[in-house]
Amino acid sequence: MEVVKTIAELKERVQKAKVAGKTIGLVPTMGFLHEGHLTLANTARQENDVVMMSIFVNPTQFGPNEDFKSYPRDLERDCKLAKSVGVDVLFAPTVEEMYPTDGGIYIRAGRQSKILCGASRQGHFDGVLQVVSKLFHLFEPDRAYFGQKDAQQVAIVQTMVRDYNFPLEIRTVPIVREEDGLAKSSRNVYLTEQERKEAPAIYESLQIAKEEFLANNDVSKAIELATKHIETKTSGKIDYLEFLSYPDLKPVADETNHFLLATAVYIGKTRLIDNIIFHTKG
Amino acid sequence: MEVVKTIAELKERVQKAKVAGKTIGLVPTMGFLHEGHLTLANTARQENDVVMMSIFVNPTQFGPNEDFKSYPRDLERDCKLAKSVGVDVLFAPTVEEMYPTDGGIYIRAGRQSKILCGASRQGHFDGVLQVVSKLFHLFEPDRAYFGQKDAQQVAIVQTMVRDYNFPLEIRTVPIVREEDGLAKSSRNVYLTEQERKEAPAIYESLQIAKEEFLANNDVSKAIELATKHIETKTSGKIDYLEFLSYPDLKPVADETNHFLLATAVYIGKTRLIDNIIFHTKG
Repeated sequence: MEVVKTIAELKERVQKAKVAGKTIGLVPTMGFLHEGHLTLANTARQENDVVMMSIFVNPTQFGPNEDFKSYPRDLERDCKLAKSVGVDVLFAPTVEEMYPTDGGIYIRAGRQSKILCGASRQGHFDGVLQVVSKLFHLFEPDRAYFGQKDAQQVAIVQTMVRDYNFPLEIRTVPIVREEDGLAKSSRNVYLTEQERKEAPAIYESLQIAKEEFLANNDVSKAIELATKHIETKTSGKIDYLEFLSYPDLKPVADETNHFLLATAVYIGKTRLIDNIIFHTKG
Repeated sequence: MEVVKTIAELKERVQKAKVAGKTIGLVPTMGFLHEGHLTLANTARQENDVVMMSIFVNPTQFGPNEDFKSYPRDLERDCKLAKSVGVDVLFAPTVEEMYPTDGGIYIRAGRQSKILCGASRQGHFDGVLQVVSKLFHLFEPDRAYFGQKDAQQVAIVQTMVRDYNFPLEIRTVPIVREEDGLAKSSRNVYLTEQERKEAPAIYESLQIAKEEFLANNDVSKAIELATKHIETKTSGKIDYLEFLSYPDLKPVADETNHFLLATAVYIGKTRLIDNIIFHTKG
């Protein structure tokens, strides 16, 4: 595995693969890799000639009061993990390398970005689209891999790829969970022992809501039961817990048959997200 | 020359060129081709294995009171002209083909877009960046060709390419003029006989300003003389006539040594633009 830190070095590797007619699979990450990321890389490994990964904690997707500075970083460990799953090229640029200039041109996410995580993270998805479009141009991948855990992010990135004709395919990979159901996340390390014990209630609540909805087709009741479960089993505070159509992210209507059930919960100071995507009839 | 109207057909042609290791030169146009466009295509012909041209009157860069509907179109004639200069693939999509969906994600041009033509054409450069980024993703060109006539457009597109790492090179080609100095433009056909006689005064005024500036280094005096020339020699109305640094498009400062002298003038109902770019010392 090659670790490159500059755009010039990266473009050399990309050019080499292109000239050889090899397909490129890109796994964009913010590092501090866990099994979720490795599953993305494993999937990319199966579907492409060359697997490239980016590790970049992107400042433009963090709000002024968010955890950009304290977001966990461990490049040495990440390199070992990336190598172990067959990543060929790892790109770990500095902020200066990624944003040397600012001509004031910005991508603004739309309606999809104002709800769920976007409601409390103004500008977050604008920053995501900015860095993702840069990475897509730098790696020129045939396929890019995103975790279903960030369902809203995937929906918005897919919309950009569709509406702006990016020449690549977005591939999504199911959420990887701990044995007790907690979705894997780099932020799980922030949890105290007690908080870690409470956290699986988040996924439990989504399952409860899904079962209730499938049994009685009642969105309000499903949300109510799920909310009660989180409030009873944790000391956490629900940021949102919503049923939406997927991938449009619109309110559930009679004709909806593809659902996103998504939640964000503060367990102590740590904000955890989780979701279930499922189909009904049709 | 192949004329294709759908994205699927276009992507087949692009893929074929890529697989064969051929370089692609893109000439994006709104059609009604004149010598300016053909010069772009000729330059692309010299520098690339395959030359592709798009002809698309992009609705998103026209304001509600602008001439989208009446903008001149003549695809049959354009095809003959494009063929005559060695274009290999001509892409002429419908509006529906280019904008089948709208997920609400938009690119917003910045400071550079609020001045010159942007001051009176709100949202114009946002629309330009939208269609240009789509075309860049669809054609995956090695080089894209723009006329220096739209100096502000070139500066803004170059900024997007730089800040978003588009994997291509922007090539600019000097303004092509009629014998009397009038810059070639699709809009020149709108001019009455009398207006056409007045129109060369636009370029004359820029030359006067440049000469005055080089002689006395006085921006205000140069602008004053140029303004007077247009007001005396035409019945037109000046929209703007400005001296800026290029390509930053900032006010001229002591250290500026690369200048854009740009103007837009309404001759009757027709808005004509022209510019001179020049260096001084250093």
